[in-house]
Amino acid sequence: MAKIAMKFGGTSVADLDRIRNVAQLVKKEVDRGHQVAVVVSAMSGETNKLVGYINALSPHYDPREYDTVVAAGEQVTCGLLALALGAIGIPARSFLGWQIPIQTSAMHASARIEDIPPENLDACLASGKVAVVAGFQGVAEDNRVSTLGRGGSDTSAVAVAAAMKADRCDIYTDVDGVYTTDPRIASKARRMEKIAFEEMLEMASLGAKVLQTRSVEIAMQHRVPVRVLSTFDPDAGGTLLCDEEDIVEKKPVTGIAYSRDEAKISLMKIPDHPGIAAAIFGPLANAGINVDMIVQNISEDGKRTDLTFTCPRTELPRALKALEEAAPAIGYREITSDANVAKISIIGIGMRTHPGVAQTMFRTLSEKGINISVISTSEIKVSVLIAEEYVELAVRALHSAYELDVA
Amino acid sequence: MAKIAMKFGGTSVADLDRIRNVAQLVKKEVDRGHQVAVVVSAMSGETNKLVGYINALSPHYDPREYDTVVAAGEQVTCGLLALALGAIGIPARSFLGWQIPIQTSAMHASARIEDIPPENLDACLASGKVAVVAGFQGVAEDNRVSTLGRGGSDTSAVAVAAAMKADRCDIYTDVDGVYTTDPRIASKARRMEKIAFEEMLEMASLGAKVLQTRSVEIAMQHRVPVRVLSTFDPDAGGTLLCDEEDIVEKKPVTGIAYSRDEAKISLMKIPDHPGIAAAIFGPLANAGINVDMIVQNISEDGKRTDLTFTCPRTELPRALKALEEAAPAIGYREITSDANVAKISIIGIGMRTHPGVAQTMFRTLSEKGINISVISTSEIKVSVLIAEEYVELAVRALHSAYELDVA
Repeated sequence: MAKIAMKFGGTSVADLDRIRNVAQLVKKEVDRGHQVAVVVSAMSGETNKLVGYINALSPHYDPREYDTVVAAGEQVTCGLLALALGAIGIPARSFLGWQIPIQTSAMHASARIEDIPPENLDACLASGKVAVVAGFQGVAEDNRVSTLGRGGSDTSAVAVAAAMKADRCDIYTDVDGVYTTDPRIASKARRMEKIAFEEMLEMASLGAKVLQTRSVEIAMQHRVPVRVLSTFDPDAGGTLLCDEEDIVEKKPVTGIAYSRDEAKISLMKIPDHPGIAAAIFGPLANAGINVDMIVQNISEDGKRTDLTFTCPRTELPRALKALEEAAPAIGYREITSDANVAKISIIGIGMRTHPGVAQTMFRTLSEKGINISVISTSEIKVSVLIAEEYVELAVRALHSAYELDVA
Repeated sequence: MAKIAMKFGGTSVADLDRIRNVAQLVKKEVDRGHQVAVVVSAMSGETNKLVGYINALSPHYDPREYDTVVAAGEQVTCGLLALALGAIGIPARSFLGWQIPIQTSAMHASARIEDIPPENLDACLASGKVAVVAGFQGVAEDNRVSTLGRGGSDTSAVAVAAAMKADRCDIYTDVDGVYTTDPRIASKARRMEKIAFEEMLEMASLGAKVLQTRSVEIAMQHRVPVRVLSTFDPDAGGTLLCDEEDIVEKKPVTGIAYSRDEAKISLMKIPDHPGIAAAIFGPLANAGINVDMIVQNISEDGKRTDLTFTCPRTELPRALKALEEAAPAIGYREITSDANVAKISIIGIGMRTHPGVAQTMFRTLSEKGINISVISTSEIKVSVLIAEEYVELAVRALHSAYELDVA
């Protein structure tokens, strides 16, 4: 007997037939003698419908009310799945975030899970019932409903798996695993059998949509083995997230991620003296703007230099406003911005031991005539900022250059 | 400054424009300096959609899961109304049943409100915010979501009004008040300016759909002045529920109610001895069947008699099954049933002091050739069972006979 957490996304519970199909997949695990907790998203389209209502009523909404409204979607599916399980003879009960409770921070609409006391889940499993948990939602210390941001049900699932000390967390989705890159733009993308937690973390945070970043962090921290597999073809193999040591062949680059959610800001002729970075990024931090890549040119005369950085595209207007207000304190001559940029990243734990990996990236992009405006690196990834129109071309060229194409 | 509870039904919050309209009605009361709690139903159609899902998945559903699913409808509207109020500058916060908490019995799907600790509501109102409460839902002692049955949001509203010691509870609906009878079948029905709690209680429990019976009980018990008025024409006057003493002109009959939710069962030639009623109604009570009107014929020979009673039409098959199982213990010769019956009731507190009121009813029906099969009376109402096909005719004839027609 094992303890298993299963998670089903919106397309997997999109209608009653699909909910019945999910009940059958859960039944299979129960029939094998396992204790099962299932985490579900809202029926696909529901969350968007509710967000549409909210935006229409109140452009500057109170995030606590936003959470109250959107959490209703998962409430419906977890009750329906419990009923569908009961109808095929599998005892089940639903849990809303506040009933477990899934305790989160009070950062509504993008709350972080802080703790999941295991007692209620354990009692449910011990009584022979399947626990059906509403994903995406929790309860904050103000006793209000909270939600975890886009893709939050992945995080719910991994956190529930950690709380119940599950042997495995299976993330069922509409693709059959994690790919070397987005198969929609690179037809030669390959499904990975295994990926190290650290690589998956970079993939997710650099733009791959298959898992929410926070879910990978929790999996890594609690060493929860996570499988990504297809609801509609569960025997297709999937991808296992595992420790680095469990991966035998370490290629220099295992995946390529991209993000179009980027904007670039350049400040020209800023004074090159200590404290200038604080003068620039202080006001941005106060405005709650996430700055990502930063590059500062070498000062030509030791007095004035240029500085470029990126932020999420949706935050560009607010970032420009903050910088214009801080102009006297910073003392720049000119400010320019560009929302038509994208970030391309190569990721691989093998990078640590293979020299020259970044050089291959730069050469490949240069051969295609793609200009790089900002570079940032870490131990296991290299990211570059390019014009958005080159995204597909760059991804495909890099996928070939790092020998990731299917045979 | 007064404390006011307002309640809006499903058609009043059917879409975003109507929710904005409700926000304006709430704003009017706030602008007058009042403290306001608003109770809302689900957007019309939502509850039926969710119930449809449930029935499709699981005909013999777990009522706790039913409650979890259907309560989502009110959750959405209470969050949306809070947002709509915020958008027009009225500070507001939503409350779900478990957040107040609205404590109910564990009789899921038809739970009774047991207590509403006022602290959270009071704190919200004292902080200058409008409290927007999800109607129809509460939390049971098992910490599961509960719901109050059809029309339960009325009860939520009156109970919230009682908890916050409101000066008034305004029930906004799609009609402009309580009518002498159903205007859809009697065009001469008149809106009542006032109705006594006791009369309203009879009207509601005898078939008038305008308020849930339990809401009137709570209003009566806590002496909450309740007004029924139209969301779409709030200045049309409405109807005030009040103490009997506040009604000056006491007509013998103030309203006529009907119910098609009836079935009749007759047991022929039962032994006429002590204990026979217990032998019949014991098994029915054990099966959870609500028996309403009962009539026992006079025994012709002192040995055998006939007994007729009514129960809700939906419970007829179960009632017959229970009686057939108990046939040896009861000892009847024959059992007959009829689902094509309806109950017509005349109601009025003036009945206490006006003799001959029932006689007018019997004569009027007789003149129209309508046969009465069962009669039941209380101090302020007379109910008769007739063939269902005569409902409209009987209601209109009685409405004229008791001089209730509009001038």
